Amino acid sequence: MLDSGTICAPATAPGGALAIIRVSGPKALSAVGSLCKGITADTPANTVHFVRLTDGEGSVLDEVLVSVFHAPHSYTGEDAVEISCHGSRYIINKVLEELVRKGCRMARPGEFTERAFLNGKMDLAQAEAVADLIASTNRATHQLAMSQLRGHFSSELTVMREQLLKLTTLLELELDFSDHEDLEFAERSELLALALSTDAHITRLAQTFEAGQALKKGIPVAIVGKTNVGKSTLLNRLLRDDRAIVSDIHGTTRDTIEDVIDLQGISFRFIDTAGIRQTNDKVEQIGINRTYAAIDKAHIILWLIDETPTQAEMSEMQARCADKKLLIVQNKIDLTHIPQAREELLPSSPIIRISAKRGTNLNLLENAIVSAADILTFSAGDVIVTNARHYEALIRAKANLQRVISGLQNQLSGDLIAEDLRIVLSDLSEITGGLITSQETLNNVFSHFCVGK
Amino acid sequence: MLDSGTICAPATAPGGALAIIRVSGPKALSAVGSLCKGITADTPANTVHFVRLTDGEGSVLDEVLVSVFHAPHSYTGEDAVEISCHGSRYIINKVLEELVRKGCRMARPGEFTERAFLNGKMDLAQAEAVADLIASTNRATHQLAMSQLRGHFSSELTVMREQLLKLTTLLELELDFSDHEDLEFAERSELLALALSTDAHITRLAQTFEAGQALKKGIPVAIVGKTNVGKSTLLNRLLRDDRAIVSDIHGTTRDTIEDVIDLQGISFRFIDTAGIRQTNDKVEQIGINRTYAAIDKAHIILWLIDETPTQAEMSEMQARCADKKLLIVQNKIDLTHIPQAREELLPSSPIIRISAKRGTNLNLLENAIVSAADILTFSAGDVIVTNARHYEALIRAKANLQRVISGLQNQLSGDLIAEDLRIVLSDLSEITGGLITSQETLNNVFSHFCVGK
Repeated sequence: MLDSGTICAPATAPGGALAIIRVSGPKALSAVGSLCKGITADTPANTVHFVRLTDGEGSVLDEVLVSVFHAPHSYTGEDAVEISCHGSRYIINKVLEELVRKGCRMARPGEFTERAFLNGKMDLAQAEAVADLIASTNRATHQLAMSQLRGHFSSELTVMREQLLKLTTLLELELDFSDHEDLEFAERSELLALALSTDAHITRLAQTFEAGQALKKGIPVAIVGKTNVGKSTLLNRLLRDDRAIVSDIHGTTRDTIEDVIDLQGISFRFIDTAGIRQTNDKVEQIGINRTYAAIDKAHIILWLIDETPTQAEMSEMQARCADKKLLIVQNKIDLTHIPQAREELLPSSPIIRISAKRGTNLNLLENAIVSAADILTFSAGDVIVTNARHYEALIRAKANLQRVISGLQNQLSGDLIAEDLRIVLSDLSEITGGLITSQETLNNVFSHFCVGK
Repeated sequence: MLDSGTICAPATAPGGALAIIRVSGPKALSAVGSLCKGITADTPANTVHFVRLTDGEGSVLDEVLVSVFHAPHSYTGEDAVEISCHGSRYIINKVLEELVRKGCRMARPGEFTERAFLNGKMDLAQAEAVADLIASTNRATHQLAMSQLRGHFSSELTVMREQLLKLTTLLELELDFSDHEDLEFAERSELLALALSTDAHITRLAQTFEAGQALKKGIPVAIVGKTNVGKSTLLNRLLRDDRAIVSDIHGTTRDTIEDVIDLQGISFRFIDTAGIRQTNDKVEQIGINRTYAAIDKAHIILWLIDETPTQAEMSEMQARCADKKLLIVQNKIDLTHIPQAREELLPSSPIIRISAKRGTNLNLLENAIVSAADILTFSAGDVIVTNARHYEALIRAKANLQRVISGLQNQLSGDLIAEDLRIVLSDLSEITGGLITSQETLNNVFSHFCVGK
């Protein structure tokens, strides 16, 4: 499966002062060595050298730093060289051209990490975390990727697989010695308890996927309320931008408008919605229906009010937001004729009083939003599933484990159950890329990488 | 003059798989060492280390490669560290944040190279070549920058300065011993010859500036000829683009249209011009005048014809192109009714026969254009002045040297001449940044650099 050629690629974006060109494979040292003096197969590992790279005709391409790594102590596990040259596109292309002339070939996207995986330097989930790490834009996504790269998810999977292997062993023992009536086997109830506990574990992991997706794409926050209460003004404030059209006319916003912004290191996707009111305008009514849909999708609801809601309104909103975090926000506190909303009618957390127009108390609101995201935050060791491929494998494993469980409950014979168990194990192995990983899966995983990684 | 703090900056463009962060100054090793295990002031020079960088609260920022350099054997001449981390903007910013917390400060553009200059690692002309090298986009500009970086220009200046110092010494000898009539001094005519030879040398260097500019910005090539001969079609062909509007109507092109493309590693700036004909259209007449102006600016003229020009037309074009390379190109050879232009009337190089519409013989034309640029090409050791600051210093030096020469010719006293000689020496020193370089000059030079270099 492993193409043993020597690969090269730029690993930095064009346009900087410096650029890194990576070379990995058996010819890495000799190829680079043939472009300069002083680098040979005997150059000590983990050393840096200042050299002049020359082209085939002996003219100097660049003065560069060359870092030398020996297999297996490199990122890929192979002999490897990193060239730090000047960031001119011309120089980068010329150096790559010379490397190709010396027997290297251009690397595919993610091929360095693919080799790291194939050489056992990391499992597939960790390899995927490398791409997530490079793409990370804030504290939350960075922490998720780093946790996965450091193998926390992989360890949890190992624990589960060990449980399942134990189950398999016990079943096989039962099969092998089922004729010896004098031997005692584990009770089926014990086996069932083991399967159920693993099922609970898989379920828990799979459930983190929604949170993981929210953290990656921005936690959805719907801004809802009556028309003209200032929802679009608040959205613009939160986004520090003129994203939504603001006017005094009731029902200005019809489409749901959304955009993402980071607050305290977490991405939030704010969704401005059409104001809720009775209307005969068909377009507006469609907008209002979308508002309800937005509430359904959101994790956090900012209910913007300008006066104390009625008991009926309150009950309706609470019913709609049963499994959400509901923040009640009174806007327009800059207008003195608007009375303070009465808290006693509102059983949830205290009302946050702001002026979206003037930006008053916006920091209080932002803190409340970040706190409301608590359900979704996590500490460094927590495992959150962020990758759709992993989630699908977990769901498949769960379905197949259900067959194991019902087999145990229905006193099915051990060999049938063992067969299903093997499928569950293989589902879980797919995540970390166990003994056999199909080329299709590898292509799928690594084609999303950037070149040079 | 030298701020002794420790500086840090990203040296690569954002958006790649990897990024380089540079740290230079007395605290470089201790600052990086405080973010990871294993790096101390005693870490051997020119070694690479795989480490985990952690922030102040101990959470892992990234797994990185750290290269260690000890003063004076680094780019800047100071203790220095290069961190190769993952290319996430978040990670880059966090690492820089932590470095600043540990006592580094963000580097100004070009500050690493400025330190290299101040620490005597390179002269000012070489430092400027670093920026040119990074900006180089083709073989010609790369070769110019590399030649300057390797000190070819600086060596020529050294030769000139040694000549001038010899002149100064001879003059001072004349002054010191002028009372001793029995001593023989160098003849004034000998001194004059030395000054004139230096003047010729400076003139030769200054004259390369125009060529240097042309190579940097693209050698100007004017496409001229009668209306409707296919000039715009040819421009589009050469640029592989639909840059100019093409129609069958005589006089379609009125503005001069220009664009740059590289042919065989050299930039050419092609200028499409209005066709030359008698016209009463005022706008078209302005365009035709601009055509003549374009011919004046160009180094190479492509005279596009579709039939043999008259003797008068031929003479006029040759007069206009006296100091240019003139290429006569017959277009529309795909049209069988157009007779081949007769060579005997055209004393210059053979006619190149093409079809711009079909692309026939375009490679022959491109080769001819590249050959015509011969006057401007150069070999690796040649010195070409590309920098306006250098050119201005050379022009100033030449003017002051004129005063030396006329002083020698007019038998002025040695001390007056010596004074002018010192000014010439200081003019030339400015280029390489001799003993004293003003902060203003430094700011001027290094503010054009990118951050991290």
